[in-house]
Amino acid sequence: MKRSLITLTSDFGTSDYYVAAMKAVILSINEMVDLVDITHDVQPQDILGGAWILKNAAYLFPPESIHLAVIDPGVGTERRPILVRHRNHYFIGPDNGLFSLVTDNDEVEVIELTQKRFWRINTPSKTFHGRDVFAPVAAHLAKGIPIDELGTNISTMEVYRWAIPTNDKEAIQGWVLHIDRFGNLITNIPEKLIQSLGNNEKLRIYVGNHVLKGLVSTYGSVEPGEAVALIGSAGTLEISINKGNAADMLGVIQGSPVSVLLDRSVKPQ
Amino acid sequence: MKRSLITLTSDFGTSDYYVAAMKAVILSINEMVDLVDITHDVQPQDILGGAWILKNAAYLFPPESIHLAVIDPGVGTERRPILVRHRNHYFIGPDNGLFSLVTDNDEVEVIELTQKRFWRINTPSKTFHGRDVFAPVAAHLAKGIPIDELGTNISTMEVYRWAIPTNDKEAIQGWVLHIDRFGNLITNIPEKLIQSLGNNEKLRIYVGNHVLKGLVSTYGSVEPGEAVALIGSAGTLEISINKGNAADMLGVIQGSPVSVLLDRSVKPQ
Amino acid sequence: MKRSLITLTSDFGTSDYYVAAMKAVILSINEMVDLVDITHDVQPQDILGGAWILKNAAYLFPPESIHLAVIDPGVGTERRPILVRHRNHYFIGPDNGLFSLVTDNDEVEVIELTQKRFWRINTPSKTFHGRDVFAPVAAHLAKGIPIDELGTNISTMEVYRWAIPTNDKEAIQGWVLHIDRFGNLITNIPEKLIQSLGNNEKLRIYVGNHVLKGLVSTYGSVEPGEAVALIGSAGTLEISINKGNAADMLGVIQGSPVSVLLDRSVKPQ
Repeated sequence: MKRSLITLTSDFGTSDYYVAAMKAVILSINEMVDLVDITHDVQPQDILGGAWILKNAAYLFPPESIHLAVIDPGVGTERRPILVRHRNHYFIGPDNGLFSLVTDNDEVEVIELTQKRFWRINTPSKTFHGRDVFAPVAAHLAKGIPIDELGTNISTMEVYRWAIPTNDKEAIQGWVLHIDRFGNLITNIPEKLIQSLGNNEKLRIYVGNHVLKGLVSTYGSVEPGEAVALIGSAGTLEISINKGNAADMLGVIQGSPVSVLLDRSVKPQ
Repeated sequence: MKRSLITLTSDFGTSDYYVAAMKAVILSINEMVDLVDITHDVQPQDILGGAWILKNAAYLFPPESIHLAVIDPGVGTERRPILVRHRNHYFIGPDNGLFSLVTDNDEVEVIELTQKRFWRINTPSKTFHGRDVFAPVAAHLAKGIPIDELGTNISTMEVYRWAIPTNDKEAIQGWVLHIDRFGNLITNIPEKLIQSLGNNEKLRIYVGNHVLKGLVSTYGSVEPGEAVALIGSAGTLEISINKGNAADMLGVIQGSPVSVLLDRSVKPQ
Repeated sequence: MKRSLITLTSDFGTSDYYVAAMKAVILSINEMVDLVDITHDVQPQDILGGAWILKNAAYLFPPESIHLAVIDPGVGTERRPILVRHRNHYFIGPDNGLFSLVTDNDEVEVIELTQKRFWRINTPSKTFHGRDVFAPVAAHLAKGIPIDELGTNISTMEVYRWAIPTNDKEAIQGWVLHIDRFGNLITNIPEKLIQSLGNNEKLRIYVGNHVLKGLVSTYGSVEPGEAVALIGSAGTLEISINKGNAADMLGVIQGSPVSVLLDRSVKPQ
């Protein structure tokens, strides 16, 4: 019998038993699953951070994967528990904007999870719906329960429009969405938007009090210690220091603005 | 053929190869297992912390699960390696009080692990019984070796009586057992004990130099930045700050005392 | 059908989606694999640290295991992607010395990974060969693709000769290779080399501004707070403090020198 794949994303960290509790609940309902952690180190209550992680990781998994995602500052309040189906992947978690980036403004199927018989208990803990609602629903879905048995088809979900840079013909204004472990500054400015500005050589990237000229293709294109702008593996503008930590060395933090401008003083080739 | 489930809990952290070494040894003996980490970030040598994690997570896993737990400051000394069976779950690790909370003062089966043919080597490393004794025994147990072949049935194990609050009719004295990633203060005071005091409205919770009045049901019951007392997902009193970090904001550390008292000045409804 | 085993080692940390991306790519090609993390917390770009982790963990796994290892400061430059076969284990990653310690100076089979049909995309990201080259090759190897179809047999790989202590008849000069979570100082001085000096009682171990006399067998051989030298679970000299943190208390950092000398003033027994 085929094993199903459930991924887990949260802001629970790994020093508590919270992640294990979700896995335990899943395996108690359905042992024929493979569990893969995406990350549990999303900053506490950082819905945008979780949305961005899901956007980059989810669709690399095989079709039919179930993505359990719990960044849930509103747990225990009126926010709805939902299941979203998109591009033949399933997303289960709170309806608080967490799935805004994976759906990419497309039409999606959204189910409000109202069928308590698929929950762990009828009256879930007010603070831990990951264990009591989302994990058991994911396990039942993996077992083959059709999605419309899990709850009520609703037409909408919360969609947040952050994370989209603004631009005109000569400039793009975005920001640092994420700083990775190496100190790379990952922005929300997609490659396509930069290409729309035109000539690479004329591009000026402003970050902190630094100005970078043009994009390179690899970290190693410059001397160690020098800053570069390139298109990172997430497909967006990234600012890095060859063999160094850009966040530390440029003094830039998450949320800092990044501008890309066209330098009119550069003669076209 | 059915795969067995082995969970792993330790204070090894995840930046060394220690956890991987235990998994490698298990998989070398028995590849038909699913391995699930509970956590490896128990504070170094914090037996109580490990015991508390096991208590909260273990029984959420399916029956017949094997829980390998290694917080082992006495490794290489006379402390016994044991297997404990309780509520149809198996616990394998050092006999140092680590299984005190999962057994909850019930009678349990305890096996001292004396059969060296189920160890990785006859003379285990003096510093790493997780790899050389506990992991291989867990793998053999998962393969179907009966527990009394693994060693000698003994009647007792080390039981520590920490983590139990004191109380009388008007007051409970407990303490902060754990601070989670969100800064929530998780105490050792169970819901039932609080209910025995009576009227929620008259309860006063003393923590640090703060006094909280009564219990609420969700983090979101108060304004952002305000402190609340509630029953957390572990079933004990928890002190939290809505969208904030209670440990930082109240200046409270692990081990700090928490008192629950009945305010006699409040008129009964 | 038998499931294959792929281990993962990197310096990616666990707060980004990078590790999940590699797993997703593997599972999309081959779902019949078990994935085991060795660690992703190798210090950023610390090739020696990764090599040391692999040396200690890899061969504990069953034969035919595939070890995907990505500590890759030269990603996007000319360094070659390789597969190394040794002792019936497979190692896949960048040719930058990362496999120096597992091969232990033996003759090994080395394949340069040139067959792009086994990559995720023909033109991999310049910054993330873990996802685009190494993970998919590992998945295909696990599926049974013979290694010489994955690329070109080449006779050599980068071998770094660090991590080998120097010695003469009366002294050994090594260094602290790794500090584990407990603050234990793990050196590169193997047990055999120490034995070659002779009488344990006459040994003097110099580390920081401390001198330890002789080796003991367990942490618990001395009073809490006292320093000991012993042979650790990796088979090399380790300096520890019983129930304490040696790195903090002795003020020693990774890379600090450690000397073992024979004290001529001690009379032979």
